Amino acid sequence: MAKPLNIGLIGYGFMGRTHSNAYKRVNDFFDLQYRPTLKAVCGRDAEKVGEFASQWQYESVETDWKALINRDDIDAIDICTPNNMHAEIAIAAAKAGKMVLCEKPLSMDVEEGERMVAAVAEAGVANTVWYNYRRVPAVTLAKQLVDEGRLGRIFHYRAQFLQDWTIDAALPQGGAALWRLDAGAAGSGVTGDLLAHCIDTAIWLNGSIQDVTAMTETFVKERMHNLTGQVEKVGIDDACAFLCHFENGSLGLFESTRYARGHKALYTFEINGEHGSLRWDLHDLHRLEYFDHREESIIRGWHDVHVTDGDMPYMDKWWVPGLQIGYEHTFVHQVADFLEDLAAGRPTSPTFAEALETQKVCQAVLESAEKTAWTFV
Amino acid sequence: MAKPLNIGLIGYGFMGRTHSNAYKRVNDFFDLQYRPTLKAVCGRDAEKVGEFASQWQYESVETDWKALINRDDIDAIDICTPNNMHAEIAIAAAKAGKMVLCEKPLSMDVEEGERMVAAVAEAGVANTVWYNYRRVPAVTLAKQLVDEGRLGRIFHYRAQFLQDWTIDAALPQGGAALWRLDAGAAGSGVTGDLLAHCIDTAIWLNGSIQDVTAMTETFVKERMHNLTGQVEKVGIDDACAFLCHFENGSLGLFESTRYARGHKALYTFEINGEHGSLRWDLHDLHRLEYFDHREESIIRGWHDVHVTDGDMPYMDKWWVPGLQIGYEHTFVHQVADFLEDLAAGRPTSPTFAEALETQKVCQAVLESAEKTAWTFV
Amino acid sequence: MAKPLNIGLIGYGFMGRTHSNAYKRVNDFFDLQYRPTLKAVCGRDAEKVGEFASQWQYESVETDWKALINRDDIDAIDICTPNNMHAEIAIAAAKAGKMVLCEKPLSMDVEEGERMVAAVAEAGVANTVWYNYRRVPAVTLAKQLVDEGRLGRIFHYRAQFLQDWTIDAALPQGGAALWRLDAGAAGSGVTGDLLAHCIDTAIWLNGSIQDVTAMTETFVKERMHNLTGQVEKVGIDDACAFLCHFENGSLGLFESTRYARGHKALYTFEINGEHGSLRWDLHDLHRLEYFDHREESIIRGWHDVHVTDGDMPYMDKWWVPGLQIGYEHTFVHQVADFLEDLAAGRPTSPTFAEALETQKVCQAVLESAEKTAWTFV
Amino acid sequence: MAKPLNIGLIGYGFMGRTHSNAYKRVNDFFDLQYRPTLKAVCGRDAEKVGEFASQWQYESVETDWKALINRDDIDAIDICTPNNMHAEIAIAAAKAGKMVLCEKPLSMDVEEGERMVAAVAEAGVANTVWYNYRRVPAVTLAKQLVDEGRLGRIFHYRAQFLQDWTIDAALPQGGAALWRLDAGAAGSGVTGDLLAHCIDTAIWLNGSIQDVTAMTETFVKERMHNLTGQVEKVGIDDACAFLCHFENGSLGLFESTRYARGHKALYTFEINGEHGSLRWDLHDLHRLEYFDHREESIIRGWHDVHVTDGDMPYMDKWWVPGLQIGYEHTFVHQVADFLEDLAAGRPTSPTFAEALETQKVCQAVLESAEKTAWTFV
Repeated sequence: MAKPLNIGLIGYGFMGRTHSNAYKRVNDFFDLQYRPTLKAVCGRDAEKVGEFASQWQYESVETDWKALINRDDIDAIDICTPNNMHAEIAIAAAKAGKMVLCEKPLSMDVEEGERMVAAVAEAGVANTVWYNYRRVPAVTLAKQLVDEGRLGRIFHYRAQFLQDWTIDAALPQGGAALWRLDAGAAGSGVTGDLLAHCIDTAIWLNGSIQDVTAMTETFVKERMHNLTGQVEKVGIDDACAFLCHFENGSLGLFESTRYARGHKALYTFEINGEHGSLRWDLHDLHRLEYFDHREESIIRGWHDVHVTDGDMPYMDKWWVPGLQIGYEHTFVHQVADFLEDLAAGRPTSPTFAEALETQKVCQAVLESAEKTAWTFV
Repeated sequence: MAKPLNIGLIGYGFMGRTHSNAYKRVNDFFDLQYRPTLKAVCGRDAEKVGEFASQWQYESVETDWKALINRDDIDAIDICTPNNMHAEIAIAAAKAGKMVLCEKPLSMDVEEGERMVAAVAEAGVANTVWYNYRRVPAVTLAKQLVDEGRLGRIFHYRAQFLQDWTIDAALPQGGAALWRLDAGAAGSGVTGDLLAHCIDTAIWLNGSIQDVTAMTETFVKERMHNLTGQVEKVGIDDACAFLCHFENGSLGLFESTRYARGHKALYTFEINGEHGSLRWDLHDLHRLEYFDHREESIIRGWHDVHVTDGDMPYMDKWWVPGLQIGYEHTFVHQVADFLEDLAAGRPTSPTFAEALETQKVCQAVLESAEKTAWTFV
Repeated sequence: MAKPLNIGLIGYGFMGRTHSNAYKRVNDFFDLQYRPTLKAVCGRDAEKVGEFASQWQYESVETDWKALINRDDIDAIDICTPNNMHAEIAIAAAKAGKMVLCEKPLSMDVEEGERMVAAVAEAGVANTVWYNYRRVPAVTLAKQLVDEGRLGRIFHYRAQFLQDWTIDAALPQGGAALWRLDAGAAGSGVTGDLLAHCIDTAIWLNGSIQDVTAMTETFVKERMHNLTGQVEKVGIDDACAFLCHFENGSLGLFESTRYARGHKALYTFEINGEHGSLRWDLHDLHRLEYFDHREESIIRGWHDVHVTDGDMPYMDKWWVPGLQIGYEHTFVHQVADFLEDLAAGRPTSPTFAEALETQKVCQAVLESAEKTAWTFV
Repeated sequence: MAKPLNIGLIGYGFMGRTHSNAYKRVNDFFDLQYRPTLKAVCGRDAEKVGEFASQWQYESVETDWKALINRDDIDAIDICTPNNMHAEIAIAAAKAGKMVLCEKPLSMDVEEGERMVAAVAEAGVANTVWYNYRRVPAVTLAKQLVDEGRLGRIFHYRAQFLQDWTIDAALPQGGAALWRLDAGAAGSGVTGDLLAHCIDTAIWLNGSIQDVTAMTETFVKERMHNLTGQVEKVGIDDACAFLCHFENGSLGLFESTRYARGHKALYTFEINGEHGSLRWDLHDLHRLEYFDHREESIIRGWHDVHVTDGDMPYMDKWWVPGLQIGYEHTFVHQVADFLEDLAAGRPTSPTFAEALETQKVCQAVLESAEKTAWTFV
């Protein structure tokens, strides 16, 4: 019989939904020693958070996150707030002895992140950051193939995260669901929101990044801010691209934007090695493309691997070959891993400490763009 | 507050899991007047059904389906047994005044199906058959585009369902999860298992089928039967293809097999009309391809529509543009529609009566192959 | 120094251009003992054939094909006329001791074809039929992979040839470039024009076809005929599909139409065997897709083979890896093979005798559709 | 009757073949006032150039390019030598009053290029540089769509040219066909060989580039040099990537390498504007992908345009819809345009002056990589 793990969720927007879904579904598919319980959800607007609690069947509601953290019946705090609240909540939660699951990016900057890492270390609490794309089965498979050495020495890594939802100049720059456009709440624009995902995966697959040269752009310079009702200067980056060197000698190329017409959430990466290459694309997340130069030349070509069979990562838990899963399953996988690791006394990657490295790269990227100069991480 | 709808599930195999998942998730995403409750699951093997109940949190267990049907606390019977049990259970459930949700195909043959249709009609109970692929958002969108007349007069409809999982001659022909290979339990092979899906969608999109010429093949003629321990003649069709005329004057081409190497569950269809065409593929179920000849010629080409935006069928209930859902969501959609229709007093398509038409085509196909002659439906 | 081979071309339409191009280019790329010389082109309209001769640099012009055949300075007759002239010209040319290269399909019917086969056999002249798609490098590679036994026992073969250029009911049914719509000139519609290609490739790759069940349709029943100025009943088939059994026990599915919106010349085939599968598509003719089930499961997937490297069939003669060739090169390859075979005293496949088998299948298909019954080839 | 234009070709390697083919074919397909004559080919090795002349039917051979330039029967000099000979030959040819067609890149550096531009200007001779990819029909179509303003304000331009043919460390760094790996002959590595193509297209489609930040890498630091027989330091860049700003305010991202396993000649570009986007890929050069956000949302998606119809750029000259042309045709198109422009007294883009701009960007890129700093063009 699985032991309950009482969850206290803070924030009930898009990520609040993906996490709640993950907690509710995980035990239907994975055999685990823990079973998450939706104990409480916290938000400032009592009516809205109440509706969310009702829809998702949370047992209780809080409007003050400090009150939530102090409840004895909460085992783990899950932070789904805008970025500017991550550090304060996470540090307080750790001090209160709670496990902490924090949405990405870890923090507003490196300094905050370092304090968060110190706090969870000092408290000795389980911690993880929701870089969910590591747990797309095709991406986990890519990690496995790289770790097996199939690609040989790596020459190139490239990634992009392209969206097109902020091109309309009439879109406000903040307020509620639009906090990602508000520099005060988000810290940065696409760098923290999108590139952070690309960087996390890149470090995981290809190791550390040493130095970067970057450029950022804000195409729409002023927008109405919903909270103030004023047209204000836009503080976030609409687009960001950088070149870099990895510690293993390979070259990196990264780009993200919210101004690429025709792309909704096109996160792609490709890695080229001496013997082979891999590429993946979030718009068809259930596929991995693989090339192996050592194959016989007349049948050599990119393999289009439909990652749905039972011997693929996580896929023995779902349906039958050919039947695809989707975006939300990545969160289920992260919860499953977290619960397994908890039972085994292992950390769950990426921990706060691991996610801090991504934060350092993001900060170096923004500094490089600001200074228009190569910058060490 | 949603009103509970007590479900009694019979059978706990692959389909038992997809249906259970649908019942548990639907209210998290859809605002409905009913909330399914997993009241009881029924199976002959007490230990196995108990494990399933525990995993999925069913409140109780039955080992005799007749007992389940007679329980007062059950509102709806969901039939996930092998095909040879559909008719008896459905008719008994209807007589007991239960709503009936039956896995496809409706029945072993037309005669059985007609009795089932009569039973639910006489009892006046809500009924539906789980032809789930109608509720892939891309397929529902195809229906919408056809109904809007965008394709004009239809000339061609083609569909295929290709798998490759029974090529190994050492695979037994029945027992437990392999009942689909046992003619006694399944009635037919790919015709009822795979082509039935293609036919259901085809009739829905393109209207009735008039006559057919078909061929079937059993590539591996004898297999061990797990239940008898004997090598026995194989009774099912491994492959089936047919040509047909639709009532609207268009030509149809259908094929299904379990001997197409490289295809796991490749259900595809394409429809060609005077003005435009549509095609879809289960291996990338979140995409629909659309061609409109009336577009300006220099930018004319197949549109690759990534069916993930909020204005696509069902997609306002899920995530954000670019983030795909998967196979299992089709069952959630069917439950959502069933519950909405129930509240509104409407039938939920395909009803038993509608599914009977697919049964008639399947029977004509098998007869045509047997007689090697064109056969009217 | 290559020896001249004097060509006499009859007909200067679309095929006249593709053949002329092949003769002019072949020696630039292939080392051959013969060099084709564009000696004469023949057509009934002196002005038009003169313009063609001038454009393509033919040395002379004829307006009577019998005169051409009797010229001593002509070595080979190339027949690019409408189908209803193939037999008479080919037989006369053979009797005159000329080599004969005949456009496909070989003839209007089997009886004609048999007389043509007899004529070239009796005369002992080199002969070939322009089923050019065999010599797409990707298709030739498919043949090589099949012949090496990589697919194992074959279960399925399917092919289609889809076009959309005759949907407009205002299109006339014949005259000049539209002779393919005139039953008198073409013999049949899509069956001889398109399916003949599919059948030729299929027999080449997968062996003989035993029996067929077919359906044909003429969607637009009456059209203006440009030659008579009258609206007349349309005599050709707009669409044709058939099921069949191959001698090797595999099942076949074939379809062609000129009413498939969005497809210009979509000739595709796929072959599924015990161990692997192959598929190809004329719209991307430089690619072959290959699946091998014996590969390690986690990297197993369809290989997308870009057939441009020097070790691919014919490709050492062209450019460098990654740079694709196109449609017209298939004719260059056929000329190259014809000239090599000529030097070696070998027949060039498909010979008239080989092409006759395709004619027999076409005739069985049309008979089956007419009788609505399975028909033996 | 077309007037002869006597060609003197210098260099008979890969480019010598593509240009010869273009001259020989152009009048078969295009109606022109000039007809190129293969008057003479020049190379230092008398035997090899003689074989080439025989294969391609050049009328005469020279082994000294100065002799060729001084021949009265030569109208145009076509330079297909390694890059280090471009300037000297081009300037001499211009002084001799010959038209000059020069392979890309224009020159070894900007200084050389400026002298070449001055020389052709002073002599008043027709001149062009073979940036052939502008004349892929799909790329020309992209230009047309951009010029019509369909994309609106441009935000992003990205291009890459990926190859994998120099990964083997045993490959020598120069000699004969390998001169592209010899810094002395080529000037640079991928920057001049591959990026130059990307930059030429980018400037043509999206306007001037202002400043760049770049990185280059030489993965294999030492290689045997075939000409000296010694292992020597490699002087060329194996990979080069840069970020840039265009004058129109859009951001650019460029990458090229010969170390990307699985890519033979993958030249791709994508351009994202306010209303729409375009992308293209040399591996399927006959297709253009187009996205228009202003389309109705439920059928909005990337259009896959098969650029083969007669209303597409250049395609009325070739075959029929659906039948693709290939790489070599881009050179035929450039010759056709050159001859038309000649008759009309117009320059043929890119002229030397236009190609100089690409040279300036290349030089800024190499300087930026050297200095590790943003550099103005």
